[in-house]
Amino acid sequence: MLRVLSVAAAAAPRLPRPCAPPGPLLLGLLSRQVRAAAGSADAERGSVLKTPKGTRDHHPAQMALRERLFRTVVTCFKRHGAAAIDTPVLELREMLMEKYGDNSKLIYELQDQGGELLALRYDLTVPFARYLAMNKITNIKRYHIAKVYRRDNPAMTRGRYREFYQCDFDIAGQFDPMIPDAECLKIVHEILSELQIGDFLIKVNDRRILNGVFAICGIPESKLLTMCSTLDKLDKMPWEEVRSEMVGEKGLSPEAADRIGEYVQLHGGMDLIEQLLQDPKLSQNKLAKEGLGDMKLLFEYLTLFGITGKISFDLSLARGLDYYTGLIIEAVLLQQENDHGEESVSVGSVAGGGRYDGLVGTFDPKGRKVPCVGVSIGIERIFSILEHRMKAAGEKVRTTETQVMVATPQKHLLSARLKLISELWDAGIKAEMMYRKDPKLLKQLQYCEDMGIPLVAIIGEQELRDGVVKLRDVATREEVDIPREELAAEIRRRLKP
Amino acid sequence: MLRVLSVAAAAAPRLPRPCAPPGPLLLGLLSRQVRAAAGSADAERGSVLKTPKGTRDHHPAQMALRERLFRTVVTCFKRHGAAAIDTPVLELREMLMEKYGDNSKLIYELQDQGGELLALRYDLTVPFARYLAMNKITNIKRYHIAKVYRRDNPAMTRGRYREFYQCDFDIAGQFDPMIPDAECLKIVHEILSELQIGDFLIKVNDRRILNGVFAICGIPESKLLTMCSTLDKLDKMPWEEVRSEMVGEKGLSPEAADRIGEYVQLHGGMDLIEQLLQDPKLSQNKLAKEGLGDMKLLFEYLTLFGITGKISFDLSLARGLDYYTGLIIEAVLLQQENDHGEESVSVGSVAGGGRYDGLVGTFDPKGRKVPCVGVSIGIERIFSILEHRMKAAGEKVRTTETQVMVATPQKHLLSARLKLISELWDAGIKAEMMYRKDPKLLKQLQYCEDMGIPLVAIIGEQELRDGVVKLRDVATREEVDIPREELAAEIRRRLKP
Repeated sequence: MLRVLSVAAAAAPRLPRPCAPPGPLLLGLLSRQVRAAAGSADAERGSVLKTPKGTRDHHPAQMALRERLFRTVVTCFKRHGAAAIDTPVLELREMLMEKYGDNSKLIYELQDQGGELLALRYDLTVPFARYLAMNKITNIKRYHIAKVYRRDNPAMTRGRYREFYQCDFDIAGQFDPMIPDAECLKIVHEILSELQIGDFLIKVNDRRILNGVFAICGIPESKLLTMCSTLDKLDKMPWEEVRSEMVGEKGLSPEAADRIGEYVQLHGGMDLIEQLLQDPKLSQNKLAKEGLGDMKLLFEYLTLFGITGKISFDLSLARGLDYYTGLIIEAVLLQQENDHGEESVSVGSVAGGGRYDGLVGTFDPKGRKVPCVGVSIGIERIFSILEHRMKAAGEKVRTTETQVMVATPQKHLLSARLKLISELWDAGIKAEMMYRKDPKLLKQLQYCEDMGIPLVAIIGEQELRDGVVKLRDVATREEVDIPREELAAEIRRRLKP
Repeated sequence: MLRVLSVAAAAAPRLPRPCAPPGPLLLGLLSRQVRAAAGSADAERGSVLKTPKGTRDHHPAQMALRERLFRTVVTCFKRHGAAAIDTPVLELREMLMEKYGDNSKLIYELQDQGGELLALRYDLTVPFARYLAMNKITNIKRYHIAKVYRRDNPAMTRGRYREFYQCDFDIAGQFDPMIPDAECLKIVHEILSELQIGDFLIKVNDRRILNGVFAICGIPESKLLTMCSTLDKLDKMPWEEVRSEMVGEKGLSPEAADRIGEYVQLHGGMDLIEQLLQDPKLSQNKLAKEGLGDMKLLFEYLTLFGITGKISFDLSLARGLDYYTGLIIEAVLLQQENDHGEESVSVGSVAGGGRYDGLVGTFDPKGRKVPCVGVSIGIERIFSILEHRMKAAGEKVRTTETQVMVATPQKHLLSARLKLISELWDAGIKAEMMYRKDPKLLKQLQYCEDMGIPLVAIIGEQELRDGVVKLRDVATREEVDIPREELAAEIRRRLKP
């Protein structure tokens, strides 16, 4: 469907002249569009000629890339039997406000214009839990791809926006331990492999193990969440710095910090799990023991899936959100893009998720729990990486799927063109023509080259008399007369994938 | 892809029991979901357990229907060579506020949380014009399918919501008259035909003709827009009532109203155009003459497309929005659904659009114009009609695309299931299994019937020893042993469309 044309030899992007009569539609190079999307200087001329801070338009070439990414993600979700749902972008403010801890300040609130107090959703997980409780659904495997909103500090070159897509897959229901959890990891593995964005590592941990570690190191439960957020920095700074934040800002004793350090710097696979199960202190902690038992089960299932090579049990993984209760997941890219100085793409996490067994219960009037586990694919970061990579490679992407251009070689043949293109549309052929009475043949052919249209159906006076259409291959320039009634079938035959 | 299963014999909808261990995923009948979507009494128990007024969740069966509609619409837009774009849901408040006349009061505004003043988009047309001006694009054929927001009075059974999808196709650029306009009508004709929602009529008029009619009837230009909104009621009430509103509320003289009445009750095709071109008064009006000339051209092109049978030149068509400058379009269904009393679906317009040559210029710092024409498909109303129709017919819709269920007939075979399903996923097969260690075979088969899964891959001790998998056809109950390495190919062969 989507064809990526290599244009190594392409010079400056071909742009339509302002109001040039039969000019080609816009087919900018990605580079131009990246600049425009980042908010060009031009945009400041007219005061309203910009998109809100942290948001952007998507140009056709960007949409073509985005559609390809979505197709890969959705295909995987459907392969695993998920159904689609949708929830409103707007939610009751009250419903959202208590769910994100400190991050609630990042929620966009609507003005009170009479009626309910509303806000824009911050993620897809809390609305999903609201959906389950409201509809008394105790059992569903669903995906949801939609925009969410955060009044965050945008970092647009790294793919961090205030309006961005989330691609979520979640399994809700009471099941045997770690079977749905293992499937979530399989899904992340499949998607990151298929997108070919480079080598990746999927880190896993368990909130219960973390809690156990903190407990045996003598950290009060009240400090647990703040410790998690400090701990999360271990992938960006060395242990010494994290330790000094714990001791300095967070008021931990140096001894407690050192005890934590012994654990959280550990990462590995089944060996590490076995080692910790033998750990005299940790194995005495009930929560940690449960978590380690489940982690062992998880690695057994992941071994059957053949994906343990890219999974790391990492005791430093904490993840910020309050609602996780068991397994936590985060996938990171190992090979960073590193092209041209300021434009280099620095991305970290490209997927995340975990188990949240308590969230639905907070919505249910009777507190009934629905255990859930899910993952979210960080599609915006992946999009940034691939966009920059295509730009670096000078790749041009087709923004339309047009199969044939209906063209006339002489004047006064608009009627013939309209009649023929109508026949082709009715036969399901993707066809375009110039919106001019008498376009020059050269312009029509040029348009095909610009837009990557592979075929031209030329109908002139001679062809009309003979009841044929001249079918031209844009690449080879070969032309063949085809009986008019066979044209659609011939086009379909030539463009068979 | 989407299979609609007929369940004439189905009794009560099969629902998962609360927390029943291996219960089937939700596959409710549409009827149940319609009730839930309309806001059931249950939702009021928990105060936050509802969606905001005029919004709704989409359940899997609704999403399956919605996806089918979108696919039809997008396929048509792509057949006509359109590229996709996307713009943010949020826009600068200032940009939106002046564009919708009286309707501006329906715009959702965001709270001032510091930074820019924002609002939710009201339609996709004004953001499109902002996009063209901001990026200096003078030439594009694009489609955009996305949600828009209006603080309107919701009428949810008739498909009127506060959050709803628009499906827009627009052609921007300086071209020869009426060629893009004719294509817009062809697109509406194709989509409404393909969706099979019943007989329809596409009404067309031209703002210039309307202006001319008002002018020769002696109506001052200041009253033009308010007259249009009164006139728009002619499809819901008889001329006498419209006339009395014009004379009473709008202060028109009875003579002027009668003169208008002579024109706006006219509708027809090429004959009417010719008749009006001969009209001694109207043909003297420059604007009307231009409009009539273009309307004649349009009908010539529509004749070549073979679609004049469903097009009506209707002088009562006015359309509310300020920004139209030429052709205006509105498609209505002729046969209304009329099933069970209160639940009957009353829908009017299912598509609308027109030419707006001035809108982009209002954004451009130098006022440069980009002529535009476009149509918007009223997908929510069409969705309502089809949803009610499926409900009336008791149709059940598959919500997933799972091809095969991986099942085991004995205990202690979880590993075998995990290994086999992993092989199938890696081969691109859509496969599911129960998230239980030892599910009963009957439960696994029942799940297939509930979810419409056509095949079961059964792997037991004997099959493991023989290196085969028993492939069962759910409908016929036939079972055949297939060598394990040929399983994926066999499943693909059996389910070939």
